[in-house]
Amino acid sequence: MAMRGLLRLGEVALRVLDMKAALEHYDKRMGLEVTLTGDDGRVYLKAWDEHDHHCLVLREADTPGLDHVAFKVSDDAVLDEMAVRVRDFGLPVKHIAAGAMPKSGRRIEFTLPSGQRMQLYAHKEQIGNHLPLLNPGVLPDEGVIRGFRINRLDHALLGGPNIDESARLFQEVFGFDMSERLIDADSKASLALFLSCSIKPHDIAFVLQPEPGRFHHVSFLLESTYDVIHAADMIGKYRIPVDVGPNRHGVTRGATIYFFDPSGNRNEVFSGGYVHYPDTPTLTWDTSELGKATFSQDNTPRESFLTVLT
Amino acid sequence: MAMRGLLRLGEVALRVLDMKAALEHYDKRMGLEVTLTGDDGRVYLKAWDEHDHHCLVLREADTPGLDHVAFKVSDDAVLDEMAVRVRDFGLPVKHIAAGAMPKSGRRIEFTLPSGQRMQLYAHKEQIGNHLPLLNPGVLPDEGVIRGFRINRLDHALLGGPNIDESARLFQEVFGFDMSERLIDADSKASLALFLSCSIKPHDIAFVLQPEPGRFHHVSFLLESTYDVIHAADMIGKYRIPVDVGPNRHGVTRGATIYFFDPSGNRNEVFSGGYVHYPDTPTLTWDTSELGKATFSQDNTPRESFLTVLT
Amino acid sequence: MAMRGLLRLGEVALRVLDMKAALEHYDKRMGLEVTLTGDDGRVYLKAWDEHDHHCLVLREADTPGLDHVAFKVSDDAVLDEMAVRVRDFGLPVKHIAAGAMPKSGRRIEFTLPSGQRMQLYAHKEQIGNHLPLLNPGVLPDEGVIRGFRINRLDHALLGGPNIDESARLFQEVFGFDMSERLIDADSKASLALFLSCSIKPHDIAFVLQPEPGRFHHVSFLLESTYDVIHAADMIGKYRIPVDVGPNRHGVTRGATIYFFDPSGNRNEVFSGGYVHYPDTPTLTWDTSELGKATFSQDNTPRESFLTVLT
Amino acid sequence: MAMRGLLRLGEVALRVLDMKAALEHYDKRMGLEVTLTGDDGRVYLKAWDEHDHHCLVLREADTPGLDHVAFKVSDDAVLDEMAVRVRDFGLPVKHIAAGAMPKSGRRIEFTLPSGQRMQLYAHKEQIGNHLPLLNPGVLPDEGVIRGFRINRLDHALLGGPNIDESARLFQEVFGFDMSERLIDADSKASLALFLSCSIKPHDIAFVLQPEPGRFHHVSFLLESTYDVIHAADMIGKYRIPVDVGPNRHGVTRGATIYFFDPSGNRNEVFSGGYVHYPDTPTLTWDTSELGKATFSQDNTPRESFLTVLT
Repeated sequence: MAMRGLLRLGEVALRVLDMKAALEHYDKRMGLEVTLTGDDGRVYLKAWDEHDHHCLVLREADTPGLDHVAFKVSDDAVLDEMAVRVRDFGLPVKHIAAGAMPKSGRRIEFTLPSGQRMQLYAHKEQIGNHLPLLNPGVLPDEGVIRGFRINRLDHALLGGPNIDESARLFQEVFGFDMSERLIDADSKASLALFLSCSIKPHDIAFVLQPEPGRFHHVSFLLESTYDVIHAADMIGKYRIPVDVGPNRHGVTRGATIYFFDPSGNRNEVFSGGYVHYPDTPTLTWDTSELGKATFSQDNTPRESFLTVLT
Repeated sequence: MAMRGLLRLGEVALRVLDMKAALEHYDKRMGLEVTLTGDDGRVYLKAWDEHDHHCLVLREADTPGLDHVAFKVSDDAVLDEMAVRVRDFGLPVKHIAAGAMPKSGRRIEFTLPSGQRMQLYAHKEQIGNHLPLLNPGVLPDEGVIRGFRINRLDHALLGGPNIDESARLFQEVFGFDMSERLIDADSKASLALFLSCSIKPHDIAFVLQPEPGRFHHVSFLLESTYDVIHAADMIGKYRIPVDVGPNRHGVTRGATIYFFDPSGNRNEVFSGGYVHYPDTPTLTWDTSELGKATFSQDNTPRESFLTVLT
Repeated sequence: MAMRGLLRLGEVALRVLDMKAALEHYDKRMGLEVTLTGDDGRVYLKAWDEHDHHCLVLREADTPGLDHVAFKVSDDAVLDEMAVRVRDFGLPVKHIAAGAMPKSGRRIEFTLPSGQRMQLYAHKEQIGNHLPLLNPGVLPDEGVIRGFRINRLDHALLGGPNIDESARLFQEVFGFDMSERLIDADSKASLALFLSCSIKPHDIAFVLQPEPGRFHHVSFLLESTYDVIHAADMIGKYRIPVDVGPNRHGVTRGATIYFFDPSGNRNEVFSGGYVHYPDTPTLTWDTSELGKATFSQDNTPRESFLTVLT
Repeated sequence: MAMRGLLRLGEVALRVLDMKAALEHYDKRMGLEVTLTGDDGRVYLKAWDEHDHHCLVLREADTPGLDHVAFKVSDDAVLDEMAVRVRDFGLPVKHIAAGAMPKSGRRIEFTLPSGQRMQLYAHKEQIGNHLPLLNPGVLPDEGVIRGFRINRLDHALLGGPNIDESARLFQEVFGFDMSERLIDADSKASLALFLSCSIKPHDIAFVLQPEPGRFHHVSFLLESTYDVIHAADMIGKYRIPVDVGPNRHGVTRGATIYFFDPSGNRNEVFSGGYVHYPDTPTLTWDTSELGKATFSQDNTPRESFLTVLT
């Protein structure tokens, strides 16, 4: 009841070409905090206001892109129930033992119809958000909030074929709502699907791409549009490659800027957007308004935004 | 799964001493929109970005205060299930037929241990948020967002005895999490309890008061702290009686201003606050930090804030 | 002493192709207020927080572009002094009698070396800013601040040859400071010059263009970057053609969005920027950093921004 | 012409009871930067976006309060002219040799009718604002903007008798405008006078007090109201004693918070306010609206704000 089942996107694992450059970007510029460097070289990071040990995992590799996304579920019973339901949906499920992944309880893993590896877990070590649990106050010590002033991991957009099937998995098995969708004005085929398991306008989204398993972007939440402007100023100062922005999405109404990490993985920081509930009507956009759907302050679609993925 | 059960505080029904003065306040100043005036004189209002027909019901009466709060649930099955579970919890449940209340499906009603009447309903007529469902865009026509620029009803704080029991009902029966609580530093007795059924830091809260059924405040969500400042400017311009603010809550971290409607019912507009999940540790405040818990920008408790209720 | 001489850009007179469309833009969308329609069809507008009768004059014509810019000076003695000094600088000076232009005292007029007609005047009828002079308060009545929520006319950018000469006039005759300049990295030739007679980073600016008398943009001041985002949302909603933005200028540090009126005249709304004093060192940008100078959040120069003028 | 004569309040010199505590406050919390510690123990600080060597001078003493305020003038000729004019006004003028005060050219000093020591100087060593003069960009390196994110010293409010005389000096000798004034509703006597030598609503102000030479507050400029809220959050976190705020002034329209340094000297950080020109009508407030004049978001005068000075 209330919030139960899949709670949130709790972890995005990315491949980067050069770890030092990646940390310059994610730690020093964006202001995420390294909480662990694994024996295998993987680096784990979190945003200041998250309690869990990490939300981002970086692995050095020859190609950029996504290793996996992982959702935290409310408890172990949900994990067991989901293992059965995902298998019933038709996807093979692999079990990962507790401790096999750092700071993490047991997990289940499967591959989405759109080609990405996805995991579920009920437990990850909590290390807190720099504020005590008794009489916490509202601000951590100066220096904790730095860089882009990121509050937390928010959502990811994944690219591949079969996005209707991926969406069906999230709706029928995981109980998500479809908050918005972008369709072809003629064929009515799904081009992008936005799914929520909370009151956010999306927790995960899919965009149609010919190749499976592609990664469009990972997005982090900022406290205000003022912070989006500040992040954009930093992006300019440090010449981080900008994809698009600042602008306002039509879909979700978020104030946004898109940019690339040194390996070419797309990042977003954003703020705002409407409050979504399961009874909020699904919003539909069609390709006659592709520009408005993506970047509503100039109604102009960007070629790179639609075609560049890792 | 995901968001199921009680979704949100969907309706607050208040008694006001003078309807004309009340509408001057809620409609003309705050910018809520009158959607219906009932044959019995009740007036129904909504905020611009809500889809349901109304979130606020005003009734002219000899005393101010709360008639009821009502939560929307995800579906009728939940309504039936809750009728049983609330009765099992020990509270008599009354059934209200569909249509007995304007624009509303059937409801169940019961009295909280702290003395307030509470209702649940699965259906209310949806009249939309001034944006189309196809290619909606992000801004309604000019004039729709006016007054305090309120996005939606957010939460209420209720006063009475037995608040631990009211909280237990929300936790055990309705599946809410306790996000924060304020306790007496010596006796450890609960003084205020904050409960969430979403990722907001609270959807409902209770404050200990000797008399049952008291109303502390109803709160509306603004898009940004900038809008809180704007609302405060309007409050000053129209000499709306201010209780406290602008300030920042320790509890929930919201940027806030409190004020009174012409009948003395307390209102809040706020923005911000952290993202809460069921696995977020419960935060505890004690009376040694009462000021910080309530108004963290000066750590100063306000007598009126703690004692004036309707 | 203190603020004396030329006070501010007080008036920009533009040609528009269609007055009805122009008023839809400047009045209904941008939220400027029509204060007079002349017998000759000219329309006069002001921003809400200005005291003078108008800051913008529109004239229907076959081509868009600039009729004139006019600066308000502190008193009539300055006007007489400037008539002599401008003539001594080598520019013919024409006198315009009081009342020849609506609501205006006498003026002097001359043509800048870069080709624009410029006027000076000491008096224009003051009609106030919707707030009383006794116990004014801070907010006008609701509805007065509308559209893009423009506070006032701020500056203009003019294009033409001989911009060093135009700048020399402003510096030597009018006592302006050069706050910033953009030069060719190789030849060191001036490409754009920014001049201030106040503590704003610029009150007038010139950009090198082969044709004389060209108009780049007129800019209006908003209260906050939050309002820039709001204006951008409205620009998107009403499909006003965007040139660039939202972004942050390197030059002046203003948060900005550029767009076009229906006749193709460029407008800007902006907020922020540093405080400039006469002893602030002049900042220099060269073409090796043209992108950073113009749009510092992505360091990317825009072709249209540099070449499209009316 | 344009900006000439007195440019700005360039320096406030305060007495503090304990230098270590004072630096904890001004450097570590407020984020001003220590640029020099003199042999005599005086500490000199600046805000990040100022070019001059310092704007605040602290001296350890047995009582808190003001040593002097100093205005920067445009050039040495002004200094000489002012020495004569101030003497003609009736005030003895003392000359201070170049170098007698660190990093400073020669100065003149006199005592205001309201009892404060005031200095004028044309030169102070410029050490820059952390941005290069060639292709500067908009953001300094991370860590430069810290604490309350103060941009620069803005103004001071001084208390004493004879404030009409002090104002007359600023108007007749220094060429300031009176932007606003607060008068007794009955006697029409001046209670507070606000004077501008720029386009800010005030550069200096005086409040009637029985004792001469009193100090009400020194005020620093923040970039946005969002930063005022952030400063208020820090003030709460570090339990800096708050006098009033956050709120909005009626006078000047600034968004403000007042607090005390550890010695009891009052500080303000603020943002916003209207643009003032010499031809802007003087605004008058009377004591029938004392609350609105001071704190317009609740129209409530604060006893301490009017009576506590150092």
